[in-house]
Amino acid sequence: MEEKNIRILLQYDGTRYDGWQKQGNTQQTVQGKLEAVLSCLAGGPVEVHGSGRTDAGVHALGQVANFHLPLSVFCGSQTEAADMIRIKNYLNEYLPEDIRVLVAEEARPRFHSRLNALSKTYIYRIETADKNDVFERKYRYGLGKEPDLEIMKRAASILVGTHDFRAFSSLKKTKKSTVRTINRIDIRRDGTQLEILLEGNGFLYNMVRIIVGTLVEAGLLERSVQSVKEALESLDRSLAGRTAPAKGLFLAAVAYEEKIFQSVQ
Amino acid sequence: MEEKNIRILLQYDGTRYDGWQKQGNTQQTVQGKLEAVLSCLAGGPVEVHGSGRTDAGVHALGQVANFHLPLSVFCGSQTEAADMIRIKNYLNEYLPEDIRVLVAEEARPRFHSRLNALSKTYIYRIETADKNDVFERKYRYGLGKEPDLEIMKRAASILVGTHDFRAFSSLKKTKKSTVRTINRIDIRRDGTQLEILLEGNGFLYNMVRIIVGTLVEAGLLERSVQSVKEALESLDRSLAGRTAPAKGLFLAAVAYEEKIFQSVQ
Repeated sequence: MEEKNIRILLQYDGTRYDGWQKQGNTQQTVQGKLEAVLSCLAGGPVEVHGSGRTDAGVHALGQVANFHLPLSVFCGSQTEAADMIRIKNYLNEYLPEDIRVLVAEEARPRFHSRLNALSKTYIYRIETADKNDVFERKYRYGLGKEPDLEIMKRAASILVGTHDFRAFSSLKKTKKSTVRTINRIDIRRDGTQLEILLEGNGFLYNMVRIIVGTLVEAGLLERSVQSVKEALESLDRSLAGRTAPAKGLFLAAVAYEEKIFQSVQ
Repeated sequence: MEEKNIRILLQYDGTRYDGWQKQGNTQQTVQGKLEAVLSCLAGGPVEVHGSGRTDAGVHALGQVANFHLPLSVFCGSQTEAADMIRIKNYLNEYLPEDIRVLVAEEARPRFHSRLNALSKTYIYRIETADKNDVFERKYRYGLGKEPDLEIMKRAASILVGTHDFRAFSSLKKTKKSTVRTINRIDIRRDGTQLEILLEGNGFLYNMVRIIVGTLVEAGLLERSVQSVKEALESLDRSLAGRTAPAKGLFLAAVAYEEKIFQSVQ
């Protein structure tokens, strides 16, 4: 084997980025930033695989990505643990201050961040006070109103399970399946902050944000709980709610069959 | 009486500002922003008194300020509580998103935010991990090293009490007293975050940041605990430590003889 497969756990503040995925020549994507730094380290192009895309402006608390590095990068190394800390430190030194690698570790050769992902957890944060928190204003949707939590929970329970979520996606026509399974949606209040946690086996383009926008409309009595059921069954985007702003959304965690990132670095 | 004396509790993200105090024609100060909005409301100039200045880039969790508004502003009002909520909402609507009023209330006519302040509490936040937290990077000093907490506490104990803190100030020559009393300095660790809490009857220009810089130097074994005592006694700025960055510093609370801001709005 002439290369190592490395996986990393990383955080980013998505405010400045056009999302995760590299697009054309611009490098204002998180994937683009990672590949630029790693290509310098490797002395040749490196492709980074993320667990999934995040939209423009969406943040990550626990994104997972992997990439292959030639063994030559590791020549002269002492131990594998030292190698991994060196990779992590190199990335943290050269990545901008809004992207941070928490852990790097060697993965089995066939590990793939996206193909092997079993489930993902997203967190959406809402501020209900009249004015958004000044220190958290880039990381919370400033709703400025108090939605009814019990109604939001009833609307959310309709969406939990395996459904065709076409109505809750901004995808144009697609031949791919739009069936997904949501394992749970938890909604909790902490003072004037609402936190909506969604866990599922995968999410369509804009799906989390459209679900949140729809739940908020129900909670503000702008639509009935029944209408959420109707929107789901219609497969018609126009019957679901608004797309909630990107800035409140965080990719919190990605789960795999194997336990990953157990070590503290 | 032809006017009301209003006091407000406010937060701000100091990143964009040249500090609290109005300077010349620029309005990139928190005081300037408040006065501009209040002058519109009052239909004439309004002077805002803060509990004290905060330096450029320093944040506030609980700054206190007061100002007088002519009674004409309140004509047609229902109750005093409604008046105060109206003032708060007006300010929050027209102030930028990095300044937020938490509470407004009527004060006794002679109340003055600065002259009546008994003590102030500052919090300084440090990140010791190799890279600063991406979401908190504007609100923590990214030290990237782990100072010795016990040594920092020993150095801090030297500074607690009533002393001439001239060595811990960036003031040039001054005829005013540089004697201040620090009631306590608490240092605690939470994971890779350090939080230093300082409470005192007043702080000189840059005093908190120079104290923090000096304690960090001691904690990193770049200077001895004894040298902190010597710096204090010397009254010589050049013997104290570096000025820690503004972005880690928060004015947390201001205490008065009377209880203030008991109501929730």
